[in-house]
Amino acid sequence: MSASSDHGAPGDGPSVPPPLTPAERVLGRSPAEEARTLMAGTNAGVLATLTVDGDPWGSLVSYGLLADGAPVLCVSTLAEHGRNLAADPRASLVAAAPIDPAYPVSGGRVTVAGRVRRPDGGEAGAARAAHLAAVPSAELYVDFNDFSLWVLGVERVRWVGGYGRMASADAGDYAAAEPDPVAGAAAGAVAHLNADHADALLAMARAFTGHTDATEATCTGADRYGLDLMLTTPRGRAPARVGYAEPITSAGGLRAATVELARRSRG
Amino acid sequence: MSASSDHGAPGDGPSVPPPLTPAERVLGRSPAEEARTLMAGTNAGVLATLTVDGDPWGSLVSYGLLADGAPVLCVSTLAEHGRNLAADPRASLVAAAPIDPAYPVSGGRVTVAGRVRRPDGGEAGAARAAHLAAVPSAELYVDFNDFSLWVLGVERVRWVGGYGRMASADAGDYAAAEPDPVAGAAAGAVAHLNADHADALLAMARAFTGHTDATEATCTGADRYGLDLMLTTPRGRAPARVGYAEPITSAGGLRAATVELARRSRG
Repeated sequence: MSASSDHGAPGDGPSVPPPLTPAERVLGRSPAEEARTLMAGTNAGVLATLTVDGDPWGSLVSYGLLADGAPVLCVSTLAEHGRNLAADPRASLVAAAPIDPAYPVSGGRVTVAGRVRRPDGGEAGAARAAHLAAVPSAELYVDFNDFSLWVLGVERVRWVGGYGRMASADAGDYAAAEPDPVAGAAAGAVAHLNADHADALLAMARAFTGHTDATEATCTGADRYGLDLMLTTPRGRAPARVGYAEPITSAGGLRAATVELARRSRG
Repeated sequence: MSASSDHGAPGDGPSVPPPLTPAERVLGRSPAEEARTLMAGTNAGVLATLTVDGDPWGSLVSYGLLADGAPVLCVSTLAEHGRNLAADPRASLVAAAPIDPAYPVSGGRVTVAGRVRRPDGGEAGAARAAHLAAVPSAELYVDFNDFSLWVLGVERVRWVGGYGRMASADAGDYAAAEPDPVAGAAAGAVAHLNADHADALLAMARAFTGHTDATEATCTGADRYGLDLMLTTPRGRAPARVGYAEPITSAGGLRAATVELARRSRG
C-alpha cells in the first residue's frame, strides 16, 4: 500500500507503543482497490464539469459502472451538466462512503477524472445495462429523448481514506482492480465480532500483531484481506492488523475467514 | 415560486384530477429558501475546482455558513483542492439532502458557485466561528499551518428539488433568504401526523384544497409555510397543499401551526 500522509495526522504521535515481537506483515487494499470499492459502494455522486465560461460546476448524478470501473451517467441534455459535457468532455466524479456529521471528512471518498464519451456500438448496450443495474429506477427516464448515457473514461484516480490516509492510483490499476466483495458485510461482521468474540480478537492480537501483552482488542474494520484492530496494552493503545490465510473472494466469505483466523491464533 | 419543469416529469399527466372548488393559494419555499435550507441541512459537500490544466476537479469538503449563506471551507494547502483554490478562485459547492439509493436523483440538492476569498480582518473571526459551529471536530486541524479558511462568495445558485422541480435563485435572494427553521423537525412531524391524525389531514384536505370529495389524505412533507398532501379521491389521486395562518419562525413551531390548521379546517 502506497498510501501516504500529506500532513501530520491528528492523534498520531510517539505515544503509540511498538510491537514487542515482529508482527506478521498483512496485506491491505491497494489505493486502486479502495477506489473501486468506494465507487461500487453507492450509485450517486457529484459530477464536476466545465461551464461555457470554463468555471467548475458541481451537480448530483446517479451512475453505474462498467466492468473496468468506468462510471456510466444518465443525464438530461436540458440540464446544465448535460450541456457542459456536450461542450467539453472533461469531468470528474466524486463518490463517498456514508458521512459521519460529527467528523465529516474522516471517511472514505474517491475522485475519478477523465473525459466522457457517448457510448456507441457494443458499448451502448453495456452502458445502458450497467446504469440500470445500479439504478433500476432510471427505467423511468433512461429512454426519454432528452436523456443521454455518458461513459467517463478514467484517467486519474485520487483516493482519500480519512485523516492522513490518501493516495493516487494508476488508471490501469484502477481498471484492473476489484471492488472488495465483503465491503457491504463488513460493518455487521465488525459489530458481531466485538459483541460476541472479544476473546478470539484478543487471541488474534497476541498471536499475530507482536503486541503479546495486549489486554483487550476491538475490531475497527474488516476487508477481504484481514481485520483492523485497536489494542489496549499496559504500554498504551495501538492500532494493529491481522490477516486471513487467503484473501476473500466472495461476499459471503467473511465468516469462514475469521473463524480460520481465530482457530489459527489458538494454534 | 418560480420553479419550473425542464422536461416531462414521470408520473405527471392528465390523469391527476383538478380541484372541484377553488383551492386556497398556499405559499411555498422560494428557490432561494430551498437552497438556504439544503445548505444549512448538512456540513459536508463536494467542491468543484479547476486543476492547473483547467480540468474540473471534485473533492469532499466540510463547511460552515456565514450569515448570508456563504460557505466557509477549511482545506489543506497540501491537498489538490487547496492548491487549486490558491491558483484559481472559481469554485462551486454541492450540498444534498440524504439520498435514497432506490431513487438517487429524486431528492433535493443545490449548487452554489462563485469565487473563493481568504477571509481577513473582521471576516476572519466570523469565518472561523462559522466553520467551527458547523464542524466542531475541525478544532483538530483548523489551526494546523497547512490548513486555510476560504469563503465562497456566492454568485450563482441552482436548486433541484427532485424530478422536474428545479430553479435558479438570484444571488441576492439567496443571501437574504432564511433556512427553513422546521426542516430538521419535518420528517418526524410528517410521520406523527400520518400515524395519529389522519382524520385531521382529511378535514384539512376537504376544507382547503378544493378536493371536497377526498376520502384519504397522507402528509408527504412539512415546511415553514404548510403541509404537502397526497389525496385519494373517487376521481383519482392528487397532490395538494395546505397553508398555515402564518409562516413558522422557530424550530419548535410546527405543532402549534398544524393544530391551528386542524382547528380552522373544522371551522
